[in-house]
Amino acid sequence: MQFHEKPVFPHGFRCASRNCGIKSSGKDLSLFVSDREAAAAAVFTRNQFPGAPVLLGRETIREGRLRAVVVNSKVSNVLTGEAGLGWARRMAAAAAREVGATPNRVLVSSTGVIGVPLPIDRIEAGLVGMSADLQDDPMVGAEGIMTTDRHPKAISAAVDNAVITIVAKGAGMIEPNMATMLVYIFTDAALDAHTLDSALRDAVHVSFNMLSIDTDTSTSDTCAILANGHAGAVNESAFRNALTATCIRMAEILARDGEGATKLLRVKVSAAANEAEARRIAKSIVNSPLVKTMVFGADPNVGRILMAVGKCFDAKLNPPHTQARVNGVAVLKDGVRAEYDEPALRASLAGDPIDIEVDLGVGDGSATAYGCDLTQGYIEENAAYFSS
Amino acid sequence: MQFHEKPVFPHGFRCASRNCGIKSSGKDLSLFVSDREAAAAAVFTRNQFPGAPVLLGRETIREGRLRAVVVNSKVSNVLTGEAGLGWARRMAAAAAREVGATPNRVLVSSTGVIGVPLPIDRIEAGLVGMSADLQDDPMVGAEGIMTTDRHPKAISAAVDNAVITIVAKGAGMIEPNMATMLVYIFTDAALDAHTLDSALRDAVHVSFNMLSIDTDTSTSDTCAILANGHAGAVNESAFRNALTATCIRMAEILARDGEGATKLLRVKVSAAANEAEARRIAKSIVNSPLVKTMVFGADPNVGRILMAVGKCFDAKLNPPHTQARVNGVAVLKDGVRAEYDEPALRASLAGDPIDIEVDLGVGDGSATAYGCDLTQGYIEENAAYFSS
Repeated sequence: MQFHEKPVFPHGFRCASRNCGIKSSGKDLSLFVSDREAAAAAVFTRNQFPGAPVLLGRETIREGRLRAVVVNSKVSNVLTGEAGLGWARRMAAAAAREVGATPNRVLVSSTGVIGVPLPIDRIEAGLVGMSADLQDDPMVGAEGIMTTDRHPKAISAAVDNAVITIVAKGAGMIEPNMATMLVYIFTDAALDAHTLDSALRDAVHVSFNMLSIDTDTSTSDTCAILANGHAGAVNESAFRNALTATCIRMAEILARDGEGATKLLRVKVSAAANEAEARRIAKSIVNSPLVKTMVFGADPNVGRILMAVGKCFDAKLNPPHTQARVNGVAVLKDGVRAEYDEPALRASLAGDPIDIEVDLGVGDGSATAYGCDLTQGYIEENAAYFSS
Repeated sequence: MQFHEKPVFPHGFRCASRNCGIKSSGKDLSLFVSDREAAAAAVFTRNQFPGAPVLLGRETIREGRLRAVVVNSKVSNVLTGEAGLGWARRMAAAAAREVGATPNRVLVSSTGVIGVPLPIDRIEAGLVGMSADLQDDPMVGAEGIMTTDRHPKAISAAVDNAVITIVAKGAGMIEPNMATMLVYIFTDAALDAHTLDSALRDAVHVSFNMLSIDTDTSTSDTCAILANGHAGAVNESAFRNALTATCIRMAEILARDGEGATKLLRVKVSAAANEAEARRIAKSIVNSPLVKTMVFGADPNVGRILMAVGKCFDAKLNPPHTQARVNGVAVLKDGVRAEYDEPALRASLAGDPIDIEVDLGVGDGSATAYGCDLTQGYIEENAAYFSS
């Protein structure tokens, strides 16, 4: 498997984006289309107050077939009740008309502020004629789905004769369970919906579900995969590996562009009692405000790492046999602070990414979590997001 | 029960503080003494990497008797292994010599950076002669236990003929389970250690254990109560009520002075399935970075409140019967954003404290959590804490 230097669409996929008047400037509406019906699967937020597009999406994806994805940014259509569900259906219908499909073949997403009416008239008007703009660059579609992202995000990888391309947005309110962000995966490999669903869930488990920007789980977000079959059959195992690697790469890109972030933070926990505990402890470290600010400040306050391990009260730990490394430097040995070259560690902490490894000395569970530092930029973005 | 306008010590308690050279300036060593042995109880952090003073304190408190509390700030004696335990014992012995007690009647606390050797020689030297400085103002002892606190903290309340006085420090790394801060409660009421233990646990359950600055649970901290009996018997029920009210008041003071905080945030969840779920959901809201930054920015992005409810995946919720109020204004009705006067709400959010109430429409569990906003100040304090 190899990543492309620049993202490209797999055969048969195209996209368009434009400003339909929800944002005062910048693109706020994206359309992704396959030239023929694709097998499809999706996972959605586990937040118990899901947005209307998530409710509709769960219904749509049951048939395992999609022709298009339509996404607006700036307003999320959440906490909007029955009216919101009506708006989501109108958005699907408008996109379906534009691409010559039925509404049950269109996946809808909305991302942005919670609890504000969706300007559905603008979206319907904006969709008219949009299929004439469809073209080959995934970055064009990535632009229209951005909220507080600093840059559009798309990557591609080759597997056999097929291509896997991920278009995504991230930035904040991200601790997926599943995927509290928008992630659309396109491939021309020929795979049925059932296989796609299983491969997607496996990939998401170790990538987007191990990503956290701020512990907050969005009410909107969605990770979907469409496979239109143009490239024919692929080796399933190779496809699964490529999908997982590509999702991890995108999770890192999303973490690195977390709101206000200046660094990618990767936390690997090994020798935990089991995988579930490794996941929980890795998340505890990657989410600790005191670890995140330490990473931001390149300040080797490494004791905080074990504080964040120890606050998992019910996890099985073995303090006298706990080891921790930061960027390869042993900072804690057998549960006690180790001797190390502090200026060298401080210099290494000034880099990007930062890798924290903790060996719990308990069992054989391991997991890696992806996050970012916590900075003044996060505060600035979120203290006035509603009004901005 | 009534709060005193200025904190005073109950009869028989005194304190002293000084700089013993751990901090370059400012007080870093405090001694609290009862003129006779007091019944005592304490609860400690649940972090699985507790500091040496916590390990020793658990042993000391078993006998339910204390004469003194000795505390240093700046260095926490955590992740210091067997050596650290030896330093904690030396600190207890030095304080015992100074006040004419045995080491098993002295509670030791250390607070500050994790994983740094305790300068025990300076502490031992500093304790010599300190009993000559003992005097009546609890604020003097409060000064010596501060780390990133902006001001010393002590309050007093009257109950019958007795006084309850709390001296505390807070600031960061605070999501007690129990009491990830230092809290010392002094009373001249006559109560046995067993009753004190029960009353303390009940009070802590609804006060310090519902306080969170940043979700991070310290490895050091301690909440202890000493009752020397000088004021004689008190009505036990009145004492329990007064103790709880005083602990809640101090929890609010600690929250308001959380690192970088500009506001106290109180979150009351009612009509949850049970008390445990109410506590969990209230903590989820009070800890949500997006709710905290909304409060900081006085930005009425109120949908985030239900996002933080909904991310409690396993809690029993009832979205169409969920209500939320901010400072008394209904912002969400029946799971949908309500109509309200936005400029008025924005103005109200600029005040302090901020009260969020959520009615889940499920059962009869309720709980209140105490926290603060998330600001650039938190980042600044914690990006360079180790080095400052």
